[in-house]
Amino acid sequence: MKTYFDCIPCFIRQALGAARTLDLGDENTEKLLRQTLELAQELDWTLPPPVIARDIHRLIRRITGSRDPYLEQKIIDTELALKHLPEIERQVAASPYPFLHAVKFSIAGNAIDLGAKKGEDIDIDTIFAEALSKPVEVEAVRRLQEAAADAGSVLFLADNCGEIVFDRPLLERIGADKLTVAVRGAPTINDATLDDAIRAGLTERFAVISNGTDTPGTLLDDCSPEFLNHFQDADLVISKGQGNYESLSHLNREVFYLFMAKCNVVAGELGVPIDSFVIRKK
Amino acid sequence: MKTYFDCIPCFIRQALGAARTLDLGDENTEKLLRQTLELAQELDWTLPPPVIARDIHRLIRRITGSRDPYLEQKIIDTELALKHLPEIERQVAASPYPFLHAVKFSIAGNAIDLGAKKGEDIDIDTIFAEALSKPVEVEAVRRLQEAAADAGSVLFLADNCGEIVFDRPLLERIGADKLTVAVRGAPTINDATLDDAIRAGLTERFAVISNGTDTPGTLLDDCSPEFLNHFQDADLVISKGQGNYESLSHLNREVFYLFMAKCNVVAGELGVPIDSFVIRKK
Repeated sequence: MKTYFDCIPCFIRQALGAARTLDLGDENTEKLLRQTLELAQELDWTLPPPVIARDIHRLIRRITGSRDPYLEQKIIDTELALKHLPEIERQVAASPYPFLHAVKFSIAGNAIDLGAKKGEDIDIDTIFAEALSKPVEVEAVRRLQEAAADAGSVLFLADNCGEIVFDRPLLERIGADKLTVAVRGAPTINDATLDDAIRAGLTERFAVISNGTDTPGTLLDDCSPEFLNHFQDADLVISKGQGNYESLSHLNREVFYLFMAKCNVVAGELGVPIDSFVIRKK
Repeated sequence: MKTYFDCIPCFIRQALGAARTLDLGDENTEKLLRQTLELAQELDWTLPPPVIARDIHRLIRRITGSRDPYLEQKIIDTELALKHLPEIERQVAASPYPFLHAVKFSIAGNAIDLGAKKGEDIDIDTIFAEALSKPVEVEAVRRLQEAAADAGSVLFLADNCGEIVFDRPLLERIGADKLTVAVRGAPTINDATLDDAIRAGLTERFAVISNGTDTPGTLLDDCSPEFLNHFQDADLVISKGQGNYESLSHLNREVFYLFMAKCNVVAGELGVPIDSFVIRKK
């Protein structure tokens, strides 16, 4: 997906939101905003939006001197999600359509996004309520379930901390034997890295690889050769989150995208209301 | 008023809004956005927000090659407002508190602002409804009425086209004999210039002067010596609109401000809900 005109003011707003979430203080906030304005001005706007998100968060790590400024919130979100995992598993297992419910919990978990929204503690009640009530295209879920059953190998592109715990019932139903989960190669916003996957207990059950980049998305140009091999060879690729959608949706390779459409630009491109649960094969 | 951090993404959003209102097309929209990013980056953020609004609209006039890109809309808004002036006058004259109602119609007319909001035709019904229903600080109106009665000379800083017609009942009640109305020195957004004041019939009743600048506000550094003399010498200055408030509120000179608080930053600074009718002496 290209960068739309409406993304430009949003980049600046996101940088300001990050500065507030991380309590950067006036001097560092001004520095971050000015450098973000410069980035946005120099950017090739035919590139996908996660390019500038990557660069903004590189600036933030440089300005704060922190390798992982969101670490504390990531640990809190992971632990909170893990506390609710048994209940999620119970609800999914008790459902007449466990795969459908697993997909809905996975997409509901996509609400845990410190990039798109202001940094707040997870509202578990809302996530549970949305997982049960938000409409999804049932036919698309059926196609995904069939594709997962038919595939010999599935690559799952993970997204954020906390969210990767909500993905767990879906990952279990796809099957550990055929699954590889890809996480970010280095900290960026609250996106899950290998350390976060370990904290979430994901590595105990599944093969987890790094995609080799610090982009809050999957820009193939930035990814490691090991990841690119997996991306090319997998029978099925499932992509979680809007950042992964934004960075991959223009490719020819068939991918199943699962995410909440969190902004007007993406919702508009897809022709769905904002905050819709999206399941798209592209 | 200084430029707040929240103003920065809003500048970019306003430039995009102007590009859409004026149908600039993709190429010119990108040019305007990139140059606005550069302006915002280089700006001294201790200056009031109308500085960048001035520069954005200078860019727009350069890009479009038009001296007055909003002219058509300004004429439409003026004619529409003039059509309703007899009814406004009738309602004000019939009110038990004509000065209060004149103030309320004047502030309600401040909704006609192609800078803060997306360009749309005036919704006359909403303006009339708000003029009748929105709360104002009656005590502040009383102080304004007394100050106007006591003053030998009153300088009224006008704001937008259409809006200056809604100011008319208030101007009449202040009195043509003591009143000077100041308009912008050159076109900027839909702000009223001398040409617009003539079209609105204002010059037939009142002394109208130019403030000598193309800023959508009143930056004294930009204003003409003639205007500055009036500003210094007037017994009472009444300032209409948020742009005038933003550019003058840090001054020591006593000014009565009348406007709708159209953005979160200004509403927050004043401690009022957004879109409140504000009457402040400062």
